[in-house]
Amino acid sequence: MNMQSKLVQFDMKTGLSPDVKSIQRKLSQMQGMYADEGARSLMEAADDVLVYEFHDMHLPEQAGDIAFGTSITYPGKVGHEYFMTKGHFHTILDTAEVYHCLRGNGYLLMENPEGDWEARELKAGVSVYVPGRYAHRSVNISDDEPFITFFAFRADAGHDYGAIESKGFRKLIIEQNGRPAIVDNPKWK
Amino acid sequence: MNMQSKLVQFDMKTGLSPDVKSIQRKLSQMQGMYADEGARSLMEAADDVLVYEFHDMHLPEQAGDIAFGTSITYPGKVGHEYFMTKGHFHTILDTAEVYHCLRGNGYLLMENPEGDWEARELKAGVSVYVPGRYAHRSVNISDDEPFITFFAFRADAGHDYGAIESKGFRKLIIEQNGRPAIVDNPKWK
Repeated sequence: MNMQSKLVQFDMKTGLSPDVKSIQRKLSQMQGMYADEGARSLMEAADDVLVYEFHDMHLPEQAGDIAFGTSITYPGKVGHEYFMTKGHFHTILDTAEVYHCLRGNGYLLMENPEGDWEARELKAGVSVYVPGRYAHRSVNISDDEPFITFFAFRADAGHDYGAIESKGFRKLIIEQNGRPAIVDNPKWK
Repeated sequence: MNMQSKLVQFDMKTGLSPDVKSIQRKLSQMQGMYADEGARSLMEAADDVLVYEFHDMHLPEQAGDIAFGTSITYPGKVGHEYFMTKGHFHTILDTAEVYHCLRGNGYLLMENPEGDWEARELKAGVSVYVPGRYAHRSVNISDDEPFITFFAFRADAGHDYGAIESKGFRKLIIEQNGRPAIVDNPKWK
């Protein structure tokens, strides 16, 4: 098959594309993802807000192709824990990903099956290279701005959400004395 | 080897990184690349200006890794032809690349060995997916602004500059009546 090039516009302010529908995750789709499930449940009942959204270009999932798009995590907290994406491993575990921050302020939280973890802070203009074997999650630490990144990875890498959904990440990023703090996840198994 | 994550800053205005030295290409390194070699040679003698620069993170060149960085093509013309990068095929021909425009206005000019070509116009916030098999070149069509893109591709893809250096691209992007025009390359073999 002879693929053709593809042009995709993204709004500089919102990160959203007028060309491609985003995939949205609301509070109701984040059951059990936050340390304080009670707080999440109460929030959801009051207003099932959008936590994050991202784009899937539906490119062929071939080893030579690159999947890309923007990820937008909204400002907010569940209890003391900042709004974040579910996070995932790649199904082909040893495939990397790169995130370039377009707007806002947040963290990429990463961990591998061997127990290593890393947290890198992003602001507009900063890239983070996520090496293979590392699950990764975006966390918005701003009070009022969306955390917007442009991401790219091998199109056949695949997403494994299961491990994170059942175990969580080893670390949480929470607000402590008005600042972000990285603490142990008491629920981590 | 257990790779670690990597954080790289890029200046939002210039596209340059304080963390990684860029690779620079001046007019003197663009011999024979423009349609009007006489004009290029005269310009070089007067002032051997920088045409473009880009970053190489020197990540391991493995199939699971992603190479990334910014590319900055400066405004200018050689005769009527806009400043541009040399352009390249990937050595592993069937590997894609994605470019996300951070600033400025330009084109990605693409062609494959089968004779298909495409030209896509980028502005800040626009991504272009370059499919496998397509040589690609950045062209700055602005009078006064650098054309800055964030790029990502499979780290083992490799760069084949030879074919383009000897044959050129089938098409040129030139200024005609004050506007960009895509025309046949009279020197193309």
